[in-house]
Amino acid sequence: MGLTSFDLSPEDVPTHWYNILPDLPEEVPPPLDPETGKPVDPRKLVRLFARALVEQEVSKERYIEIPLEVRKALIEFGRRPTPLFRAVNLERYLSTPAEIYFKYEGVTPTGSHKINTALAQAYYNKVEGVERLVTETGAGQWGSALAAAGAYFGLKVRVYMTRSSYKQKPYRRTLMELFGAEVYPSPSDRTSVGRRFLKEDPEHPGSLGIAISEAIEDVLSDEKARYSLGSVLNHVLMHQTVIGLEAKKQLDEAGVYPDIMIGAVGGGSNFAGFTYPFVYDRLKGSSNTRFIAVEPKASPSMTRGVYTYDYGDTGRLTPLLKMHTVGHEYKVPPIHAAGLRYHGVAPTLSILVNHGIVEPIAYHQTEVFAAAALFTRLEGIVPAPESAHAVKAAIDIALKAKEEGKRLVIAFNLSGHGFLDLQGYREYLDGLLDDYEPETLPIYKRLGRANA
Amino acid sequence: MGLTSFDLSPEDVPTHWYNILPDLPEEVPPPLDPETGKPVDPRKLVRLFARALVEQEVSKERYIEIPLEVRKALIEFGRRPTPLFRAVNLERYLSTPAEIYFKYEGVTPTGSHKINTALAQAYYNKVEGVERLVTETGAGQWGSALAAAGAYFGLKVRVYMTRSSYKQKPYRRTLMELFGAEVYPSPSDRTSVGRRFLKEDPEHPGSLGIAISEAIEDVLSDEKARYSLGSVLNHVLMHQTVIGLEAKKQLDEAGVYPDIMIGAVGGGSNFAGFTYPFVYDRLKGSSNTRFIAVEPKASPSMTRGVYTYDYGDTGRLTPLLKMHTVGHEYKVPPIHAAGLRYHGVAPTLSILVNHGIVEPIAYHQTEVFAAAALFTRLEGIVPAPESAHAVKAAIDIALKAKEEGKRLVIAFNLSGHGFLDLQGYREYLDGLLDDYEPETLPIYKRLGRANA
Repeated sequence: MGLTSFDLSPEDVPTHWYNILPDLPEEVPPPLDPETGKPVDPRKLVRLFARALVEQEVSKERYIEIPLEVRKALIEFGRRPTPLFRAVNLERYLSTPAEIYFKYEGVTPTGSHKINTALAQAYYNKVEGVERLVTETGAGQWGSALAAAGAYFGLKVRVYMTRSSYKQKPYRRTLMELFGAEVYPSPSDRTSVGRRFLKEDPEHPGSLGIAISEAIEDVLSDEKARYSLGSVLNHVLMHQTVIGLEAKKQLDEAGVYPDIMIGAVGGGSNFAGFTYPFVYDRLKGSSNTRFIAVEPKASPSMTRGVYTYDYGDTGRLTPLLKMHTVGHEYKVPPIHAAGLRYHGVAPTLSILVNHGIVEPIAYHQTEVFAAAALFTRLEGIVPAPESAHAVKAAIDIALKAKEEGKRLVIAFNLSGHGFLDLQGYREYLDGLLDDYEPETLPIYKRLGRANA
Repeated sequence: MGLTSFDLSPEDVPTHWYNILPDLPEEVPPPLDPETGKPVDPRKLVRLFARALVEQEVSKERYIEIPLEVRKALIEFGRRPTPLFRAVNLERYLSTPAEIYFKYEGVTPTGSHKINTALAQAYYNKVEGVERLVTETGAGQWGSALAAAGAYFGLKVRVYMTRSSYKQKPYRRTLMELFGAEVYPSPSDRTSVGRRFLKEDPEHPGSLGIAISEAIEDVLSDEKARYSLGSVLNHVLMHQTVIGLEAKKQLDEAGVYPDIMIGAVGGGSNFAGFTYPFVYDRLKGSSNTRFIAVEPKASPSMTRGVYTYDYGDTGRLTPLLKMHTVGHEYKVPPIHAAGLRYHGVAPTLSILVNHGIVEPIAYHQTEVFAAAALFTRLEGIVPAPESAHAVKAAIDIALKAKEEGKRLVIAFNLSGHGFLDLQGYREYLDGLLDDYEPETLPIYKRLGRANA
């Protein structure tokens, strides 16, 4: 039988992250201060984030060395390198001439790629004397990764979890608490923002916007605390490039170079981590790989949004970033892929979309779950609902390759497993999933433009 | 940094299973027919099990070739070989001179070792023209493994799931249904046994005993159906030796040979799969490895039970096996390690216990969860409650080694992950776990002996 798994040794875990900033076709516009409307003062940022991370955010170095302690953590705790598999059972079922490969990040401690940046962020904060990291979480994938990283580096972690998730998703909360994190339902009575919303409604379901506001207020009230973000920013995306750098070696071992690469996009970190090392090749003219970014139709920032400055949160506390956005006022419908429920995407990714280097597409969740269920039966791995968006695109492209008789090499990132998301699969099996597609997007109203 | 993960290539997946029967210090007493009390007629067994499996059950060949299709399935679908890790973070935390290694079976499709025998059993049944496999399941780990194997080999799978689990553990059921299996709450109205119990109580919570009876009745009413068992029998344990055979290569790669090997025991399949290839070395006199079999105090078949003939099920439908048992009438308390809730253990394992080659110990679930929570924080892997029993023993032995200043090599089998068992961890964190220890064991009453 041919090889179907391409494993690396721990020594193959990258020694450097790849930073796309020096290679982008244009500069990333600076973040704007929400109070002044002018480029944000870095001194304000270091009150929120570790200094090293603020520096990485704007660094023009192409390769940034991974500190030995972080690389060690990625190996001894993060269980890197992660495997790359060829989906032979899926290929056979589809009778496609395409070869389908997938990188699998589900073997990490919390079952998704999020641990890659969580470990790096915890390390830099620890080195700078920070004692506590604070963040917000919806479904809990990011919160559990940061909790795990805090446990590893001996940092306290506090997570504001939207109250509806806190109640409905007790298992992710349990995971965070197992790693020693404090988890509070948001809105909470710990912050003035939280108390304001609780006063309005003692059973307020919360939102990511409120949770971000609480996390930031918490950080600003404690000199020894810093805030931690799981996507969108350049340093976060850069930490994820270990995925793509490993995949490059593994695809090389398989004797192929991808014609098409696919990743799901919420804020953009798993997509960027997987593809940017290959985007580099295309930007340098040494490849023609197509890059497909998949988003939900319920949150269509790349396919229907506007490229403009917008807040990172609903509460308008964060700096404004220039990005593809449907508007921070948008209430993202309750699709199961909670990690994709975000109104914008990373500024670097937005530029690549503008230049036609990354091609966005969007799907409804029912067709995504159908693809994921097929993948589970054939390949034995239950994809997280987020990652399932990439699975759906891979299947569609493989079927098109069959029609056209093309022997393409397709590679996608299976960014996490779905063992903690079986409620979504239950609803899929019972035919209870709802599909959502907004008629109007808040950003058009705000800009006074016609809707997309 | 030193190596902490010892990976194999797919070509290192074993080509043969190791069968312990020819090497045991005494013969396994024959199974007895429940109707006649005499050794069971093999023709009766082939109505229940595939012929090849009945042959393997009594084979005296030391190495049995793994069919190419099964080996391919283990690799391309079962994601073998599985990793072996050194638990350096745990070692550091305990400041023990012992080295602690663990084999990790949680990367397989359904998150436990059960897939190893499920794939083999599905294959042999498929080859013999069987169209449908029927089994019972409690928590659903075995049911989901068989469902996955059925999906891979194109066999229908029907699972009778105890009604209490069916209601309380919807996620394992979802996993089985994702793999295309039919899952019925037991007692069901599909069998006369089931209808009898439903008549007594329409909301009957069910038991494994009733579910086995339903599965067997189902098989006997359909020529094209066969029954499938997930532990206890020799062929099942033998299929699991891929774990130990891989671990042998990996420990060799690490440059060590284990002084102590540890596994949890329900029916005995993960313990046997991990240790029997090493037990062979000891039986041949080439090693002095100690083998520690860990069971729950709530179900103390090895530490407090009797070595005698007993039924495999509560309903007295199966042949009688000579084994360590607390009595088939024993109602195993509702501990979270549902895979260890069995009244007996495998006959081959019972013989090794009798000869002092395997040393049994027992723990309460609260101390087991405490060890598992510590392991999670340090090593980033959430153990299944069953596997957590091995974690607890490994920690205790490593601490004893510290006291005694001994540089032992400890190896245990982490037979599955606990992502689908977070309810147990929730109760542990909330201080809600109950410990159980039976005062009287039914087997003593039956035999008219004083209790242990």
